[in-house]
Amino acid sequence: MEQKSLPKQTLGRLPKYLSYLRTQPQGEEDYISATTIAHDLGIGEVQVRKDLHAASGDGRPRIGYQTAQLIERIEVLLGAHNPTKAVLVGTGKLGKALLNYSGFLIFGVDIAAGFDLHPVADTGDKPIYPMDRFAAYCRENGIKIGIITVPGSAAQGVADLMVENGITAIWSFSPVTVPENVFLLQENLALSLAHVKMVAR
Amino acid sequence: MEQKSLPKQTLGRLPKYLSYLRTQPQGEEDYISATTIAHDLGIGEVQVRKDLHAASGDGRPRIGYQTAQLIERIEVLLGAHNPTKAVLVGTGKLGKALLNYSGFLIFGVDIAAGFDLHPVADTGDKPIYPMDRFAAYCRENGIKIGIITVPGSAAQGVADLMVENGITAIWSFSPVTVPENVFLLQENLALSLAHVKMVAR
Repeated sequence: MEQKSLPKQTLGRLPKYLSYLRTQPQGEEDYISATTIAHDLGIGEVQVRKDLHAASGDGRPRIGYQTAQLIERIEVLLGAHNPTKAVLVGTGKLGKALLNYSGFLIFGVDIAAGFDLHPVADTGDKPIYPMDRFAAYCRENGIKIGIITVPGSAAQGVADLMVENGITAIWSFSPVTVPENVFLLQENLALSLAHVKMVAR
Repeated sequence: MEQKSLPKQTLGRLPKYLSYLRTQPQGEEDYISATTIAHDLGIGEVQVRKDLHAASGDGRPRIGYQTAQLIERIEVLLGAHNPTKAVLVGTGKLGKALLNYSGFLIFGVDIAAGFDLHPVADTGDKPIYPMDRFAAYCRENGIKIGIITVPGSAAQGVADLMVENGITAIWSFSPVTVPENVFLLQENLALSLAHVKMVAR
């Protein structure tokens, strides 16, 4: 099955399945059905059935897919064995936490390097470079994914620099705007915690 | 206007307005209308109008609300001047980043202390205590909000401990389950980055 043949929407849902499947038993006799997955994730069963079929062909009647095999199949589709390189700008505590988090690899993303105006050596095993090497690094490595973890006041400048240097998808922890042809996922951790607080009252 | 009179759904949306308003000019002559806010945030105008009315009464016809005054009003409603204490368990890099992030305060949340099996002193100004002080701390301070930043294998144990000690709202960066009467906001940073990657292809 060709990786290219999967529609982008299906690909976009695979990480969610993978995340869930990894919490399930994965012995040789452990199978899981689309019905169970749909129920546990709160997604429509028809959707799950179509996605799994596209990802891994037909399951066995009544029992579904061997969990371990399905995980392996999705990992291959997500590129876990051939990760895409990303860069991160802003190596404060949050930046370093993301830079050294190994959990991104199973989804096929390798944050290959961090950049900072004032790079400080770290105990982690990822390199941290000064900003003046950013442009060359991105171009030489064909980087398409950028992560922004600088303070708010510096974020827009970093986003602009990323776009100028060929990055097409940005994950930012501070508010930025990007041209229409660039994808932006805006993270707002303070908003998440504020929401939790409102509910705790 | 009584804080208690606001419906929870309205309160839940206030952080989003606040986050947006703080990016706008806040001079004495700077006003903002529900129409502008609705447009910029992509929320329905009727909704915004009702929320702002509940939060700050009527705006001035045609020009709306004085931005600075609206910000101040929302901050009061969110408890920014009288923050709610939260605790965080797991003071690795991500935990420390959250513990020392000042941006939560404007939404009325003060992460008062961190806890860890092996607490290591930090440059930050928040205390980090060993886990055996967790139960007493939560009960003495009436803590209702807990943040989980421990590795996945330890997360469920921490969630259980939080629930046992009176916490009613949990923000977790690892998968956990909680009883029905406890609110859980499940964060999955790897899933977010995986999504960015899928789009960058």
